[in-house]
Order: sequence, then C-alpha cells, then structure tokens
Amino acid sequence: MKTEILYGIHPVLEALKAGRRTCLEIYITTDRTPYRLSEVTEAAKALKLPVKSLTSSQLSVLSGTEAHQGIGAKVSEYPLVELENLTEASAESNSSCFLLLLDGIVDPQNLGALVRTALCAGVDGILFPKDRSASPLPSVSKSSAGAMEHLKMAMVTNLSATIQELKHSGLWVAGLDKSADQTLYDLDLTGPIAIVIGGEEKGIRPLVKKQCDFLVSIPQTAVFNSLNASVAGAVVMYEAVRQRMNTAG
Amino acid sequence: MKTEILYGIHPVLEALKAGRRTCLEIYITTDRTPYRLSEVTEAAKALKLPVKSLTSSQLSVLSGTEAHQGIGAKVSEYPLVELENLTEASAESNSSCFLLLLDGIVDPQNLGALVRTALCAGVDGILFPKDRSASPLPSVSKSSAGAMEHLKMAMVTNLSATIQELKHSGLWVAGLDKSADQTLYDLDLTGPIAIVIGGEEKGIRPLVKKQCDFLVSIPQTAVFNSLNASVAGAVVMYEAVRQRMNTAG
Repeated sequence: MKTEILYGIHPVLEALKAGRRTCLEIYITTDRTPYRLSEVTEAAKALKLPVKSLTSSQLSVLSGTEAHQGIGAKVSEYPLVELENLTEASAESNSSCFLLLLDGIVDPQNLGALVRTALCAGVDGILFPKDRSASPLPSVSKSSAGAMEHLKMAMVTNLSATIQELKHSGLWVAGLDKSADQTLYDLDLTGPIAIVIGGEEKGIRPLVKKQCDFLVSIPQTAVFNSLNASVAGAVVMYEAVRQRMNTAG
Repeated sequence: MKTEILYGIHPVLEALKAGRRTCLEIYITTDRTPYRLSEVTEAAKALKLPVKSLTSSQLSVLSGTEAHQGIGAKVSEYPLVELENLTEASAESNSSCFLLLLDGIVDPQNLGALVRTALCAGVDGILFPKDRSASPLPSVSKSSAGAMEHLKMAMVTNLSATIQELKHSGLWVAGLDKSADQTLYDLDLTGPIAIVIGGEEKGIRPLVKKQCDFLVSIPQTAVFNSLNASVAGAVVMYEAVRQRMNTAG
C-alpha cells in the first residue's frame, strides 16, 4: 500500500471522519500542543489507531513542511475515483449531476480552494487532467481545509475526450471564458451539468473550449477584469446552487 | 510624506495606472529579469520616474520579502478615504451605493482576495475597523493582484457606529451569518446596500450583528459547512451583481 503523510488539524480530522483512506498512525507533537488536540486523540481512540509523539521538527521532516500545526497522519494515498463513479452517484441519488472540470489549475492553493467550495456547494465530483495540473496531494487537502477528504475526484488523461463522454451521458458542458458574450446568468444550470474552469494564466485551452456546449463569462468592471480562478469557480458553482434551489422549491 | 515599498508586478503597475499614490522611484533587479519588465520601464518613462537597479537580495531587504518578483516601487502610503467619500461617490454617479464592511478579516491573503473580487464586482468601497483587522499594506496589494491600488478603502474606529451612520444615509445593511434562516437568495440586493462579512474564525461579532437590518446565510451541504471568508464574500458580491444587472436591464 502506498502511503503519504497528511498534516494539519482539518485534513487529519476530516480524513478520519470520511473513512475513505486507511490510516496507519497519528502523529502529535510534544513540544507544541496542537490546537483541537482532544478531538484528534478521541477520534484516534475510537478508531483504535496508534498515536506517536514526535518533536515539531521531526514532524516537519516527515511531512516535508512546517505548516503541520502539530498534527499528522500516515494514510493510504488519496482515493481517486473513476469517471463512471461520478455520473452513477448522481443517477442513484436521483438528482441532476453537477461536476466541475479543471483545465490546468496548477496552483495547489487554488485547487484546494476550489475543492473546498465544491464540497460546500454540493458538487458531485471534480475531474482534473493528468498533466499540467495540481494533483490531490496533502498540501491540497490542507488548503481545502480537509474538504478533499470527502469530495470525489477523478484524474483523466484527455479532457477533450472526457467532455465528449460526458456529453454522451447527457450532461451539458459549460466553459468559463472571459471573452464569451453570454454571461453565466443567461444560462440554465439546473440540469445535469459539467462546468469547466481554465487555468490561472491562460484560461481554458482552445481544444477543450471547442468541446464545450456553451461558453459563459462573469460580468466584471472594465478597470479590472481579473477574478482569481478559485473565486470565478465559486461564483459559477453558487449560481448553479441558486438556480437548482429555485427548481427544487 | 510617509512612504512604503510596493512589490510585485501587479501592485506596481496598477499603482502607476491608478495614480492615487505619489511614486518616488522604481526598483528593478539586475540578477533576475522581471516578468513584464518592459511594461514597467515604459510606464516609468512616461511618468518620468527614476529607475534604480538592485540585486534581488537588496530588493528583498528593502521590501521585507522575497516575493517581490524583481519589481518594487517607493510610494506614498496607501490613500485611505473617508466614509463620506464612499457614499457621495455613488450619489454622484447616480447608482445605488454598494459597500463591503469587513468585521475582523485578519488574514492579509483573505483581505487581498476580497479586495480583488470587490473591484471586479463593481463595489464602491470597503470599510474595515481600526483594530483586529488586516490593513491595506503592500502584502495585501500583492495578494489583491494590485486591485487595492484602484479600490476605495476607509478605516473606521467603531463598526457598529458606522453601520448606524450608513443606515441613516439610506443604506440597507446585510450581514453574512452561517446560522441565519434566510439565504442571500431571499434578499433584495438591488438598492443602496452594505454587506458585512465576518472574520475567518468567529464570523460577525454580536454587537455588529445586532446593528444589521438582515442576516443571511449561504446554502451549504451538511457534511461541510465552512466556506472560506473570501469565497463567501465573493458569492454575496456576485449575487448582488446578478440582481443589479436584472434591474438595470
């Protein structure tokens, strides 16, 4: 079994809550009492997990970062899912599928932020390409405040081909594009939908853009047209939430 | 004149574009060619500003950070405005005032992200309290991608008293609160409005909350109810943008 070291209070607690990874042991620093320590020790006790005491610098070496907040866990690697799991899940729950496709988000902070918002917004899963993309490493779990431990994520080899597959399964694919005439508020986001968010610098690649059913923009003032990628994603996800609430209500 | 060192390509370029600060000199590193260097040298030439060559480590000492991207500028301190300037500006432009009030955002990254989104969304200005708040330092200009150089910001001593003033000037004040029954989608955000965003950990303080005309929540899934403060702010600001577009159209 491949393992990795999760670090930080939220990733460790949420991984234990989600139960999707095998947890081998918990690390707690002795020279720096972690915030919310009792929650971690209680969860470890309930799951009968060994708890190891380390110094702060030993945990820094283990986790490869000083941002561990005094808490770590040796866990099995992140459980990626298959594309089919994402579309089936929503079919079973009898709700309209709601996916997020990331085309070239390379900053782990941005990926973490998108994952966190996606989980809050009820997105069924995130798809990201194998190349030129941040991947679901412990640093991303940290910047997602542990949300990554709950959210389904699938890695795909070819995003354009995946979009074609999704369209065949009945999803509408909407890409976020600064230069699109139509705004996201003109679009019906209530059905089965996949939203494509492009990378920080260049947006969605031309070949991926060509596969989208719609391209939509977010209205911005003339003086400053540069929403952060994770904020742009949040605005689209929550416009979908709003429209879907209206349909349900 | 009090001065400070702006750093990073976006803060320096946007400060020169906005023209709200006096710029004394531009710094460019010799051992590390900055990205978009020609834009900076052209802007400096047009404004007849002296350009000084430094080593990367000299600029790190000057700016107090290594995140300077090879570009810096000695400028007058950030031009805060008075509360009256914020409400008057929108009266002159004959549009409904749209303000953001921050109650205890202490992370400069979050403040920068909120400032960036606010400028993109057409917010008239941001108010923040003197105490327990991140302030508009060069690090915030950096994390706002330079948006802070354009946006109007006012520092207030007592946020509750300011809210009362705003209400007297005819604004409606809506606070974002996780436990509110009403969601932001139930609220009319088309009139003169001030939106209050609470701090990262504790949300809006009770005394400030009491002053709000409305409290609204953002719908979130049960498993994970923890939107980042800057994302929550973005969702509210863009719901206001959507409603205001509909009114205008």
